[in-house]
Amino acid sequence: MGQTNQLAHRMATKTINLVDASGNPIAGKEVTFKQTNHKFLFGSGLFNAIEVANKSVAADRLAFLETKLDLFLDVFNFATLPFYWGEFPGYWEGFEPKKGQPRTKELKAAAQWLKNRNITLKGHPLVWHTATAPWLLNMTNEEILKAQFARIEREVSDFNGLIDMWDVINEVVIMPIYDKYDNGITRIAKDLGRLGIIKEMFAKTREANPGATLLLNDFNTSINYEILIDGCLNAGIQIDAIGIQSHQHQGYWGREKLEEVLDRFSHFGIPIHFTENTLLSGHLMPPEIVDLNDYKVTDWPSTPELEERQAREVEEMYTILFKHPLVEAISSWEFSDDGAWINAPSGFIRKDNSPKPSYEVLKKLIKGDWYTNVTRKTDDNGMVLFEGFLGDYELIYEDKKITFKLDKNAETERIIIQ
Amino acid sequence: MGQTNQLAHRMATKTINLVDASGNPIAGKEVTFKQTNHKFLFGSGLFNAIEVANKSVAADRLAFLETKLDLFLDVFNFATLPFYWGEFPGYWEGFEPKKGQPRTKELKAAAQWLKNRNITLKGHPLVWHTATAPWLLNMTNEEILKAQFARIEREVSDFNGLIDMWDVINEVVIMPIYDKYDNGITRIAKDLGRLGIIKEMFAKTREANPGATLLLNDFNTSINYEILIDGCLNAGIQIDAIGIQSHQHQGYWGREKLEEVLDRFSHFGIPIHFTENTLLSGHLMPPEIVDLNDYKVTDWPSTPELEERQAREVEEMYTILFKHPLVEAISSWEFSDDGAWINAPSGFIRKDNSPKPSYEVLKKLIKGDWYTNVTRKTDDNGMVLFEGFLGDYELIYEDKKITFKLDKNAETERIIIQ
Repeated sequence: MGQTNQLAHRMATKTINLVDASGNPIAGKEVTFKQTNHKFLFGSGLFNAIEVANKSVAADRLAFLETKLDLFLDVFNFATLPFYWGEFPGYWEGFEPKKGQPRTKELKAAAQWLKNRNITLKGHPLVWHTATAPWLLNMTNEEILKAQFARIEREVSDFNGLIDMWDVINEVVIMPIYDKYDNGITRIAKDLGRLGIIKEMFAKTREANPGATLLLNDFNTSINYEILIDGCLNAGIQIDAIGIQSHQHQGYWGREKLEEVLDRFSHFGIPIHFTENTLLSGHLMPPEIVDLNDYKVTDWPSTPELEERQAREVEEMYTILFKHPLVEAISSWEFSDDGAWINAPSGFIRKDNSPKPSYEVLKKLIKGDWYTNVTRKTDDNGMVLFEGFLGDYELIYEDKKITFKLDKNAETERIIIQ
Repeated sequence: MGQTNQLAHRMATKTINLVDASGNPIAGKEVTFKQTNHKFLFGSGLFNAIEVANKSVAADRLAFLETKLDLFLDVFNFATLPFYWGEFPGYWEGFEPKKGQPRTKELKAAAQWLKNRNITLKGHPLVWHTATAPWLLNMTNEEILKAQFARIEREVSDFNGLIDMWDVINEVVIMPIYDKYDNGITRIAKDLGRLGIIKEMFAKTREANPGATLLLNDFNTSINYEILIDGCLNAGIQIDAIGIQSHQHQGYWGREKLEEVLDRFSHFGIPIHFTENTLLSGHLMPPEIVDLNDYKVTDWPSTPELEERQAREVEEMYTILFKHPLVEAISSWEFSDDGAWINAPSGFIRKDNSPKPSYEVLKKLIKGDWYTNVTRKTDDNGMVLFEGFLGDYELIYEDKKITFKLDKNAETERIIIQ
């Protein structure tokens, strides 16, 4: 594979010492190293897991969604679950649209369902000015802040162990100057300032789950966001990963812009997650639209020609990101066109659950080119060395399967065949 | 004066208890309170003070410059002296264009000359990527940083007591991505990051003169600069004043933009200095010019009609700024068209030293409308109360003059007439 050198940071070599129950080397035998999961996170939003886990839809719809999730599970290992405090009109009902009635139970069922299927989860978002709880508007700023703290404490504690990764605060660059409509979060962001609100919300989230991976997330990839992150780090705020949104409804960024963004946000030396990626298999949104939510269409078809374009763009973009040493996660915002945000043909599968070319391209990369499945022979001492992509593995010897992890700087591991 | 209420933050009332040498009240006598200086800083760049103080030009030029400075001294109380490390082509020769030959002596003479005339001074700038020392390019980044530290330590210590206000670091928003030409400061800004370089340079300056007023200064008045300042403050960097450049070669901002900028930069609650103001009495620079240094003209006339426009704009702008409670200083970048940056008709006086209408307008505001000169009568106990603009005063009683300061929250002061 010609890519080996460029992907060296994604791989490791490991020596296994294979012995029998008495400790004698198993010499000169073939063993297979079969990767079962990536360390890298390949994911998407997966709000339908809520209906499936709770069986809260009619039987035919449930069967359709189960098929959809099966297609997801074939390729991906990472999902984003929604925690919008209020309703996201036309998209999601909200976590606590009515004060005091959080949908904890339903979301927990979804998280557990996905965890059982070995999917890493992220909650999105804990603090945002859009789709926030409307009932904050009746409160004083002091009360809003208290309510926001309580909500973080509740969700992050309730989901500890199920969801250990959070988009803590979303779109802070615009947050204090967001003026489309009044909302409780912009009010407190004005009071606290950008750095102040990030500091408070990160501290509260960290307190509720000290082991969690906490992200700052923004669609603004300009110098504004760079300076904001620089400020956070210099103010002692521990950002575990920089979340970069890349909704490309108005056209693929292309290699040059993508590499330029990566270059600028790499200076901090901390992990980067592409948190909300969109590449369309339909016509592009006109460039004059500023807030993507403002584009309303009844029909936005996915076409064969544009599905090919999407597949090419997905292949190039994922390849660039997988090569970059600081990128640790890529999430498509949507997995399917069914139920997609603003009706966009932004999924890897169509509304009828049929896979688009982008699905196949990605499956080939994630489960093929970037996945390891090799057979090696042990030497006289039962030693066997292999190189593979980082992640979870099965060692298969005759009818036995032993699981292990392949990490960077892996030490020789002794595996006993019982 | 109808403006009294809007200018209440610029004024104070004070009670004086006037007694004779034996401590008996001086009752029922007229005393005059004559303001001699503003607390507010009204200034400009005044590089010609170097030639005048050092008598380093021919006699006729010297006489011309002395007249120029006299006109300045009639109105202003604040001047910016140049400390560009290298040559500013076509504008100023540089402080240390040749390594090891700093112009400390000449600059000290200028500073002393101005200090003797009761002018508050600011040094500009200690760190900047433009007009920096060219010999930094031969150094490693470690050596550049060391040289920059040494230069700060030297200048700030050498001028301690003469110059106690510094533009520490200039135009940091663009500093690490400045790509017009290679320079030593952009190199270290890339290494340290924006917050990092500010932190280091402020710390070094503070160490060299703990009592100095230290400014961050930028022409970028966008959200970038807001986020940068927010970052500095949250990272514990003490910025004593926010420096806002307002070169308006391409047209007066107008009331709306000015108030919007003031509003955004007021959130931090720290003093604001308008550090580099330009309003032209000639044609405007075309809007497509991005770096003002790129506009080269041999002749840029000041015309009677446009001098009237300049006077109106100066009057409106200074009035808005003087009313704003956080603004503590306004510096015109130029005082005179003679020797002005990029040859612009940006001064308050013409190339022949004749005052423009803007000079007269400003003199009327600074030394008239906003200046206090009142006569009051002491009561039976020798008490007399007056209200005036903050600053230095003479109390005149018969042939005696006693100086005092009018500060906010002024307490009753006992003045003994010897």
